[in-house]
Amino acid sequence: MTILIRGGTVVNADREFKADVLCDNGKIIAVGDKLDAPVGAEVIDAGGLYVMPGGIDPHTHMQLPFMGTVTQDDFFTGTAAGLAGGTTSIIDFVIPNPQQSLMEAFNTWRGWAEKSAGDYSFHVAVTWWDDTVHADMGKLVNEHGVNSFKHFMAYKNAIMADDEILVKSFARAVELGAMPTVHAENGELVFLLQQEMLKQGKTGPEAHPLSRPPVVEGEAAQRAIAIANVINTPLYIVHVSCAESLDAITRARAHGQRVFGEVLAGHLVVDDSVYKNKDFVQAAGHVMSPPFRSSQHQEALWQGLQGGNLHTTATDHCTFCAAQKAAGKDDFTKIPNGCGGIEERMMVLWDAGVNTGRLTPSEFVKVTSANCAQIFNIYPRKGVIAEGADADIVLWDAAGTKTLSVKTQFSKGDFNVFEGRQVKGIPTHTISGGKLVFKQGELMAEMGAGRYIKRPSFSPMFHALNKMRA
Amino acid sequence: MTILIRGGTVVNADREFKADVLCDNGKIIAVGDKLDAPVGAEVIDAGGLYVMPGGIDPHTHMQLPFMGTVTQDDFFTGTAAGLAGGTTSIIDFVIPNPQQSLMEAFNTWRGWAEKSAGDYSFHVAVTWWDDTVHADMGKLVNEHGVNSFKHFMAYKNAIMADDEILVKSFARAVELGAMPTVHAENGELVFLLQQEMLKQGKTGPEAHPLSRPPVVEGEAAQRAIAIANVINTPLYIVHVSCAESLDAITRARAHGQRVFGEVLAGHLVVDDSVYKNKDFVQAAGHVMSPPFRSSQHQEALWQGLQGGNLHTTATDHCTFCAAQKAAGKDDFTKIPNGCGGIEERMMVLWDAGVNTGRLTPSEFVKVTSANCAQIFNIYPRKGVIAEGADADIVLWDAAGTKTLSVKTQFSKGDFNVFEGRQVKGIPTHTISGGKLVFKQGELMAEMGAGRYIKRPSFSPMFHALNKMRA
Amino acid sequence: MTILIRGGTVVNADREFKADVLCDNGKIIAVGDKLDAPVGAEVIDAGGLYVMPGGIDPHTHMQLPFMGTVTQDDFFTGTAAGLAGGTTSIIDFVIPNPQQSLMEAFNTWRGWAEKSAGDYSFHVAVTWWDDTVHADMGKLVNEHGVNSFKHFMAYKNAIMADDEILVKSFARAVELGAMPTVHAENGELVFLLQQEMLKQGKTGPEAHPLSRPPVVEGEAAQRAIAIANVINTPLYIVHVSCAESLDAITRARAHGQRVFGEVLAGHLVVDDSVYKNKDFVQAAGHVMSPPFRSSQHQEALWQGLQGGNLHTTATDHCTFCAAQKAAGKDDFTKIPNGCGGIEERMMVLWDAGVNTGRLTPSEFVKVTSANCAQIFNIYPRKGVIAEGADADIVLWDAAGTKTLSVKTQFSKGDFNVFEGRQVKGIPTHTISGGKLVFKQGELMAEMGAGRYIKRPSFSPMFHALNKMRA
Amino acid sequence: MTILIRGGTVVNADREFKADVLCDNGKIIAVGDKLDAPVGAEVIDAGGLYVMPGGIDPHTHMQLPFMGTVTQDDFFTGTAAGLAGGTTSIIDFVIPNPQQSLMEAFNTWRGWAEKSAGDYSFHVAVTWWDDTVHADMGKLVNEHGVNSFKHFMAYKNAIMADDEILVKSFARAVELGAMPTVHAENGELVFLLQQEMLKQGKTGPEAHPLSRPPVVEGEAAQRAIAIANVINTPLYIVHVSCAESLDAITRARAHGQRVFGEVLAGHLVVDDSVYKNKDFVQAAGHVMSPPFRSSQHQEALWQGLQGGNLHTTATDHCTFCAAQKAAGKDDFTKIPNGCGGIEERMMVLWDAGVNTGRLTPSEFVKVTSANCAQIFNIYPRKGVIAEGADADIVLWDAAGTKTLSVKTQFSKGDFNVFEGRQVKGIPTHTISGGKLVFKQGELMAEMGAGRYIKRPSFSPMFHALNKMRA
Repeated sequence: MTILIRGGTVVNADREFKADVLCDNGKIIAVGDKLDAPVGAEVIDAGGLYVMPGGIDPHTHMQLPFMGTVTQDDFFTGTAAGLAGGTTSIIDFVIPNPQQSLMEAFNTWRGWAEKSAGDYSFHVAVTWWDDTVHADMGKLVNEHGVNSFKHFMAYKNAIMADDEILVKSFARAVELGAMPTVHAENGELVFLLQQEMLKQGKTGPEAHPLSRPPVVEGEAAQRAIAIANVINTPLYIVHVSCAESLDAITRARAHGQRVFGEVLAGHLVVDDSVYKNKDFVQAAGHVMSPPFRSSQHQEALWQGLQGGNLHTTATDHCTFCAAQKAAGKDDFTKIPNGCGGIEERMMVLWDAGVNTGRLTPSEFVKVTSANCAQIFNIYPRKGVIAEGADADIVLWDAAGTKTLSVKTQFSKGDFNVFEGRQVKGIPTHTISGGKLVFKQGELMAEMGAGRYIKRPSFSPMFHALNKMRA
Repeated sequence: MTILIRGGTVVNADREFKADVLCDNGKIIAVGDKLDAPVGAEVIDAGGLYVMPGGIDPHTHMQLPFMGTVTQDDFFTGTAAGLAGGTTSIIDFVIPNPQQSLMEAFNTWRGWAEKSAGDYSFHVAVTWWDDTVHADMGKLVNEHGVNSFKHFMAYKNAIMADDEILVKSFARAVELGAMPTVHAENGELVFLLQQEMLKQGKTGPEAHPLSRPPVVEGEAAQRAIAIANVINTPLYIVHVSCAESLDAITRARAHGQRVFGEVLAGHLVVDDSVYKNKDFVQAAGHVMSPPFRSSQHQEALWQGLQGGNLHTTATDHCTFCAAQKAAGKDDFTKIPNGCGGIEERMMVLWDAGVNTGRLTPSEFVKVTSANCAQIFNIYPRKGVIAEGADADIVLWDAAGTKTLSVKTQFSKGDFNVFEGRQVKGIPTHTISGGKLVFKQGELMAEMGAGRYIKRPSFSPMFHALNKMRA
Repeated sequence: MTILIRGGTVVNADREFKADVLCDNGKIIAVGDKLDAPVGAEVIDAGGLYVMPGGIDPHTHMQLPFMGTVTQDDFFTGTAAGLAGGTTSIIDFVIPNPQQSLMEAFNTWRGWAEKSAGDYSFHVAVTWWDDTVHADMGKLVNEHGVNSFKHFMAYKNAIMADDEILVKSFARAVELGAMPTVHAENGELVFLLQQEMLKQGKTGPEAHPLSRPPVVEGEAAQRAIAIANVINTPLYIVHVSCAESLDAITRARAHGQRVFGEVLAGHLVVDDSVYKNKDFVQAAGHVMSPPFRSSQHQEALWQGLQGGNLHTTATDHCTFCAAQKAAGKDDFTKIPNGCGGIEERMMVLWDAGVNTGRLTPSEFVKVTSANCAQIFNIYPRKGVIAEGADADIVLWDAAGTKTLSVKTQFSKGDFNVFEGRQVKGIPTHTISGGKLVFKQGELMAEMGAGRYIKRPSFSPMFHALNKMRA
Repeated sequence: MTILIRGGTVVNADREFKADVLCDNGKIIAVGDKLDAPVGAEVIDAGGLYVMPGGIDPHTHMQLPFMGTVTQDDFFTGTAAGLAGGTTSIIDFVIPNPQQSLMEAFNTWRGWAEKSAGDYSFHVAVTWWDDTVHADMGKLVNEHGVNSFKHFMAYKNAIMADDEILVKSFARAVELGAMPTVHAENGELVFLLQQEMLKQGKTGPEAHPLSRPPVVEGEAAQRAIAIANVINTPLYIVHVSCAESLDAITRARAHGQRVFGEVLAGHLVVDDSVYKNKDFVQAAGHVMSPPFRSSQHQEALWQGLQGGNLHTTATDHCTFCAAQKAAGKDDFTKIPNGCGGIEERMMVLWDAGVNTGRLTPSEFVKVTSANCAQIFNIYPRKGVIAEGADADIVLWDAAGTKTLSVKTQFSKGDFNVFEGRQVKGIPTHTISGGKLVFKQGELMAEMGAGRYIKRPSFSPMFHALNKMRA
């Protein structure tokens, strides 16, 4: 399949420029002025459009098991929804149960993901520790292209990693040239506050944010950063939602430490008033962790993106339906945590980020694609419009408008945290692996077309850090 | 016994003024101009001298058991050394072994302390948790005048309190109107670094500071502060030794949180070059935790005192002798931790603090006596020269000089971290409980003269915090 | 006149205690248990009441001349309103016109103030520079008891002090042992923004805060602090209204610099929505500089008070009436700047500060009285309930309530920025110079009863700084 | 002229990759695997070498007039020295005298620069203000390719820009889409301190740093940032030398403000002990402003580069000889300010930055070339190895070593602030405008071969800021 994108404005992380883009056999094979269309090529007129690298969502949970059910979006529908929003790759999570073999869990998830419509990769969670975990980490990195490991600092009595696990796993990751990542919330304090809320009779979703205040996130971020500092490893903090954890990152970076922050589209534009909605379905529909925050935190998060202290944008896409959320009807701690967003992320970012002048188009590409590709070492295969890169491309109409809604979304979830939001700036075409999979509202996602992406260990950053350790 | 101190300049935390001070029966009974000497009163000419409340050292370990031996200073010699330096009260530590009853340990320490020459009180450490600990905390507060509990965040596999213990103990303390205190070092990271040092063949004292870098202290301080924030309790951090933990306190205070910081005289003036001394006795003699730091940290600590972000000065007086230190000859992790200083603290503070203009005399009184008395709720019984206060008084000769040395010290230790330091500003007389116990170099300390000081719970600060919790 | 205050709880900056207080001949002559009432003494039953040092308002503009008129409150009515609110002393401002002799201006203001009902003192503004200003500063300090000089960094083309004046005046102040103070707003930027607003057709009061955003205040605070740092002088910043300038102070203090911050009662509880009021009288009634700010800044200011980075509370009491405010009907830059508050300050502080747990009663005394007395070196004559102090006392009913309103105020202004606010915690009696001047709502202020308070130079802080300069 | 660079590792800001690079007619015309050498092409074997975009030094003063003489390096020898060090472009400064026409000064400097061996461009200083300055700024931007204006906040009574000039010039720059830049030192305070030093008899070079302490730089940086914030313009701060000004930048960036910082190679590795050298020639040889700082500041500056709060590295190359420096023999304020470094910058950066692990090779390219090209809007003409870019290339031997010395330098200065420093990592070949001008120690610079580089206004960043202003 050959596609020529003609007459658009290419936007890369480093600059914008007018150029045609020629794709063939899954790759970009030329970027230049007035390229000729090969025989049989499909020609897309990109006049007036931006041509950008497809989005990468570094934080999704497709097909996540939960008490005998799974989230609404499986790897096919979830990645397809991403394609409809210009996102062509995801990094999902393998989450072994404590005592479960990492390799076994990895293989399970790999199987589930075969049906993906877009490219995918996996972070693997370290939820417990023994010698087999140590060994499996090596196998995953060296044989299976995993270069990042996730640690939940929350979820006491379940998958929480305590300091001992963090120390051992970070130290192992650094040996392997892999990136540790953390969900930063102090699980002990969350547990305490949850018990207190219930004791006070606060059982509804309005208690959810009260049980996970910003200080709880800030503490964990700070702690993970300190551990990374001692072990001299880079660190990636997922879903930074508040000023407290951002400040911890900002301080560490100002001291030269290599800490990276991810922010969710939802945390940037949705505030915590949603939890006060008397309608349980509405309030519970927004239950995720960390929770949505007050507008003051949103302002801080935007500043973090602008100033380069936050690096990637994600969604934590995890679509539990109303029936599943109802499990916590009488006890907010039992509401399954998760919200969607993979389809809306780039539109929300453009509308609230580029249209307001917070971000330039190139910065938009950085935070939706290029930075992620660099941090997780799949650049320039992903994250840039350049000869040799994968033909994962989104064409963007900065003047196009849309109203986001559960009614029109491709995702299988029954809820949309951006419900009713009007955005200006929408994808018109998405090309994934060289194929046109979305065109002006029409989705042509193909089950199983997505490929597993191996991510090499020892990004250049690790060589530098090795010198410092020496 | 009646004593009239005539013609001196009284220095309190709020001001300096010329006044005579009359003591009788252990109390100050008058402060005023030209007081008459009662019949039989001893009159001390304080012309040219400052008259200040006796120092309080909130951090000592007298008679600390260690592998079948004890530190050199017992409660008599240690408190006596304090009197020689103008310090009339101490708060020592009861440290139960994990699984040992708090009450049992408290009673043991109370017995040991009977021989004290100056007044004393106890912080009690919470080193483990079950219902009896919960109950004993109540008993100690309500029946025995203990209003502060200590938590060691370091010393993994020994007395380390993990987050679960911290959360439970802080929550219990706040119910009781008692102050939680922490030794802030991340024990997991210290353990890792100790193992690494040994693995690298670094077995001597020079590895001690490398195994406890500032970031390890900063992390723990930050964590304890976050826990205190969530539980809405005041917090006192012992022996703040570096910019990282001070910064954590400063940030918390700037956000209105009631966090208090203690700094040791040694950390203010001794730097970490001592660990590079090839003579093991010299290097090991300085082994304590947190370790001495680089001069940059000393500058930060002074600024913390000046700006009101550090509140008390202490010593962690804990005098192991060379023979005891030799236990770690081949493995620095086995060197018993501790240094002396109770005798020198006030002279060092005056010389390096007041003589340089960093502190006014009133600020000197704050950080050596008044603040401690207020934080631990024994003010105005202690910490001020005023009618009704205990007659614990030091007369200070700002022009007097001395060379600090193990050769001339009263402490029974065989080492002095201030060895050879010349100070200007020395105590000429110390009055303890209304008796003259030190006079121009002559020590007249009396075994058993010291009294156990009960400290009431629920200082005014707690009433305010209770409103915030409501 | 002899007054015995019986059965109350004395609150000083350092503690609360039950005691009777005996006043005679303008002084407190005894503080103690069960004092006998001298013959002829008036006995006030203070059962259930707090007995606190009278408030000091370090920032007022009574009888301020403005285009041929003056503010509504003259020195009598203004200080009388203060007495009704528990404030027994003020420090007002002498503001020479550029080129006017400082001594001449001082003498003029001294004359105006003769009619004061409460004690008063003066900061003198340095609005220009030549050798006579240098000389007059010396005369004011050495002969007239002025120990503080004010500098307006705003008001370009009028009384603005540029860097050259600041440098010269601060250097002179330090020689004299006097405190420089600044109104911190960058006048050049305010001027630019005012012109821009008018150019954009924004001529009403809603443009006032837009022309003086927080960054403009933060810049000036930072600059004044840097100048003070270089010259090694303490510095006092008046009416800190936003996070930006508070942060500058907090950073400086954390580095040990002696910077003091004042906050107005109004800035703590009134937000900037007032400027959007369509009623010009309402909006203009709130026009003062710096303007009221968003609630986020109020939260920061409270934290500043709690953490000890702000030290005094004031009002900038300056009562222009509606007719005077109307001068800016068509051009907001011509609205005379000023609001009242001397009468309400302590009630607002107690209600929003002590009732919420932000401040303890002792901290309330610090920020309404004691700190000001210490910073401006009139302690312990003012700022404490102690034998020998001036008998300036307020009795406080923590359970008493009141609705603040222009209708019931004693101030002559026709506006009240606290209109309709309900407070709990009110003064029941005020004693000024030993006389009962306010009693349960009845004001018995006497014209001319107030005394000019000389403030000595070279507070103890200056001696310390001198050592650092040496 | 055609050159094929074969077998090297291309390093761009975004990644490293093996590729051949083909240059023809001054441009890079191909980057790819196994390129064929065209007939007549010179083939350079880059095996084992890095192939990087030529350095850009954004801060030089070639041929700077001084009291009837000029600096030792004119535009030919200065740019030639740059080529020998891998630097292929400079941005120099046009500095009009107050009252001199900007256009006149610009034309003068343009004439002087004709003889340059490498490409050059100009920042133009705004040293005074009237309508002609306003007009000339427009002409320079729109007709002459100047997109940045410099403001000296120091040098009172000479070229200092006060707040009024800063405000007017920044506002004009923003209209024109040009970048304001500042030399950040408070001129009023420098003047005061210089006078004080002389008064105290400190007339030698050792007084130079005392007259320009970090706080003086921090204040000015903070002020310029605040002005830029109000006017909503990006800002570039030249030669950031200390933690104080870096902190101001870091804070502003953390709040999303577009502030850029430049650091000099010298400030990164030379400390202020040089001023204590008793040999006047040595001490005076290091006199520049801001002065060299203590090692603590160097550590901070490196952290600023690592964390992305500093963006470019420069030299302030300005070579006064010993005879010229001698003008300040008896008065340090008369020592002409300036040091060399254009030849050594990249070697020093590599050795102290890349070899230590502080920077990756890609980050090295960012801070020596790419960031500068982007900030000053000449990217991707400069700053990247890519098809279409200017053929300004340096080949780098990471294993090569050299001892820096005045004896071996190409610069005409008689002093070298890096004297005796051993570096590992040196340029082996420099290509400028497609010509090989430096080869293994042999310099083949050609007088007049350099071209004037026009820099377009309104970089993409300005479009974003315009939205924020709207």
